[in-house]
Amino acid sequence: MNPVEIIKKKRNGEILSEEDINYFISHYVKGRIPDYQKSALLMAIYFRGLNGEETLGFVKAFINSGEKVDLSHINKPKIDKHSTGGVGDKTSIILAPLIACFDVVVPMMSGRGLGHTGGTLDKLESIPGFNVHLSIPEFVKNLEKLNVSMIGQTDTLTPADKKIYALRDVTATVENVGLITASITSKKIAEGSEGIVYDVKVGNGSTLPTYEKSKELASKLLKTSKDFGQQAIAILTDMSSPLGYAIGNWSEILECIEIMDPDREVTPLSQDLVEVTLYLAGAMLQLAGKCADIDQGVKLAEEKLNSGECFEKFKALVEMQGGDVSVINSPEKYPKPQFTDSITAAESGFITELDALTFGLAAVNLGCGRKAVEDKIDYSSAIILKKKVYDAVKAGDLICEISGETEKQVSSTKQILLKGITISKDRPNVKGRIIEVIN
Amino acid sequence: MNPVEIIKKKRNGEILSEEDINYFISHYVKGRIPDYQKSALLMAIYFRGLNGEETLGFVKAFINSGEKVDLSHINKPKIDKHSTGGVGDKTSIILAPLIACFDVVVPMMSGRGLGHTGGTLDKLESIPGFNVHLSIPEFVKNLEKLNVSMIGQTDTLTPADKKIYALRDVTATVENVGLITASITSKKIAEGSEGIVYDVKVGNGSTLPTYEKSKELASKLLKTSKDFGQQAIAILTDMSSPLGYAIGNWSEILECIEIMDPDREVTPLSQDLVEVTLYLAGAMLQLAGKCADIDQGVKLAEEKLNSGECFEKFKALVEMQGGDVSVINSPEKYPKPQFTDSITAAESGFITELDALTFGLAAVNLGCGRKAVEDKIDYSSAIILKKKVYDAVKAGDLICEISGETEKQVSSTKQILLKGITISKDRPNVKGRIIEVIN
Repeated sequence: MNPVEIIKKKRNGEILSEEDINYFISHYVKGRIPDYQKSALLMAIYFRGLNGEETLGFVKAFINSGEKVDLSHINKPKIDKHSTGGVGDKTSIILAPLIACFDVVVPMMSGRGLGHTGGTLDKLESIPGFNVHLSIPEFVKNLEKLNVSMIGQTDTLTPADKKIYALRDVTATVENVGLITASITSKKIAEGSEGIVYDVKVGNGSTLPTYEKSKELASKLLKTSKDFGQQAIAILTDMSSPLGYAIGNWSEILECIEIMDPDREVTPLSQDLVEVTLYLAGAMLQLAGKCADIDQGVKLAEEKLNSGECFEKFKALVEMQGGDVSVINSPEKYPKPQFTDSITAAESGFITELDALTFGLAAVNLGCGRKAVEDKIDYSSAIILKKKVYDAVKAGDLICEISGETEKQVSSTKQILLKGITISKDRPNVKGRIIEVIN
Repeated sequence: MNPVEIIKKKRNGEILSEEDINYFISHYVKGRIPDYQKSALLMAIYFRGLNGEETLGFVKAFINSGEKVDLSHINKPKIDKHSTGGVGDKTSIILAPLIACFDVVVPMMSGRGLGHTGGTLDKLESIPGFNVHLSIPEFVKNLEKLNVSMIGQTDTLTPADKKIYALRDVTATVENVGLITASITSKKIAEGSEGIVYDVKVGNGSTLPTYEKSKELASKLLKTSKDFGQQAIAILTDMSSPLGYAIGNWSEILECIEIMDPDREVTPLSQDLVEVTLYLAGAMLQLAGKCADIDQGVKLAEEKLNSGECFEKFKALVEMQGGDVSVINSPEKYPKPQFTDSITAAESGFITELDALTFGLAAVNLGCGRKAVEDKIDYSSAIILKKKVYDAVKAGDLICEISGETEKQVSSTKQILLKGITISKDRPNVKGRIIEVIN
């Protein structure tokens, strides 16, 4: 076999065999095929795509490049959720402890913020002391103890995917449905979950450009998971505006605390976040065999959330992973950013657009995310919505607050945000967040 | 500017600006943009192409990456020829000294064998002592002295093209008309020629898959050269079967000696080679202002070739570049390969196919070319045609002889060749080598 011939084959639109894929990936991981040949293959795949068989080949090769988490000794359903990434999307923070309350194991391996989308790991690390770098044995021990653990992908799990993902990011080859599918499903299979709910975002705050592409990804994720014997449900959800009211790591944890802590009030600004979280929870409970359908699962999840049991589980999780529970109990202790500014409505009418992509990029500019891998995150920086899309506003009404570590960051973030806010005289058609369920 | 954004731009089908191209190439040459980003861009270009403006941008960036040959002090026309590469294509060996006889300067920078195609430098180096590695000042001194010098691309001339070409070869991004055009024209402009005849090969022994692609390349080469103020003619010639009778480095020099030396007889097997050589010579003389049209130039070139003057110029060239002229005068002194075998006609009929690609690959297998950059060439190894395409044969007639350094190479080469020879009962339509002239 010859790497150039394999690149040429894909370039010419032919189908790669399982041997081709194995050869390329195993040699690449060992450093015997250089990055420049891998990136040429990735770009050829960007244009030619991967069919179902090829995608399976990539998934197998990714899984076989590292170790698998063995949870077979835990006699409970093991269910996870994966989101394709959005802005203000903090459902995982609530979902993981919530589902664990049903004696379902949630082996959650999450990622960091990427581009304009936030990352669960960054949000968790805004809790002082919270450690997401656990070994596989520590991860398994946590799952045995609490049914839940939230960590980052270890170096030993699907290392081929990790190496290739880093290369895709710097060679403009991220946005391909086949490659995205292989990357996501391989991790979710290797982490040991038996069932998986995919939250596939739609709209310009998502990572794919069109509804059709998001739907194609959802179908591919489902098919691939099922081919590996996993149960799976995909839910298309709207990501055209930020989810909930908070964007920025600690502020998002705080929004989750308000939802989980029965002693706190939940603002109507969080209503869409609660809707999506409970719907995903319902689907996870269905996969776990705890209910007949999603709607029934939503009701079960809502009861559990309101009971306070989920909040207790969350605090136990924080404590188990080294986090400071006192800030969860007294969030007002958390340091506040130095500089703040706000945006008010220039005219009366209805908010027809809070553009998710613009808000995501603005948040990165504010220090909530990274422009380069080595950048440090300002955990307390945040954009706080005071109005949501579809809301009526009067001229002068507060739309959002921006708080950050430097005056310059806050003012430049404001300039970015202004372009993403549209007010119109016409009453908009209100749409829910749940677009479609695919089984 | 950001390399990923430039890759993404081309990937999405947008047009790169001159600044984008300059930034990418200048940073790549300095090692500030890694190979893996360059190869991703090359693959995106493979799929999206380069328009005229972008091609000019690449040509300028390639030229500006190194030094230019200044021949402005030589008050004679400076005309070169470039072939896109074929099998048995040894026209340059005759053309360079032939045109120099007309007091036209021929600053010929050639390449090595690539894939199944032979290389002028390898052929020249089969002459003991012949040195193709001259500096630019030595090259200019030779041109002042003899009107002709034949060398390889120096490290100082279009180094960006050299570095990128090496990367294209190992990332399956060679076959793109825009990239091929930029690579060829930048060298031909930097070498100091004022006029250029492009011999663009058509057929499966060429480097492009279809007549349309070859024609597209011819048009792009012409347009680009003219945009830089060069005169140019492109001639599409047939490369579906080997040109002349010899394939293999020294054997090809020998075929040229027979054509150039008036004391030797020219076999009818060389007729197509003479046809193409004289036609290209006619076009070069037209560009040099020595005749009104190609046909007139062909007559002038034929007279000069038959006069023996061209052979004297060739020997002076060989001597000037350190070659052993005694083997040119007495070619029978040249060492012969150890092992020989032959292919005879299995049936009577007409040869309808001597597949150029098959013969080219067979020659590489025999040691006439390289499979890897570090391979050593066997200069005396050769495939010698005893019949040409369209010839009538009787069963048992000799079609070709194979001679090489090991028995295994000779026998495996024979097996390869058998697949490329077709004999049919029907008399074929005989076609000439010159397909089309584009001005």
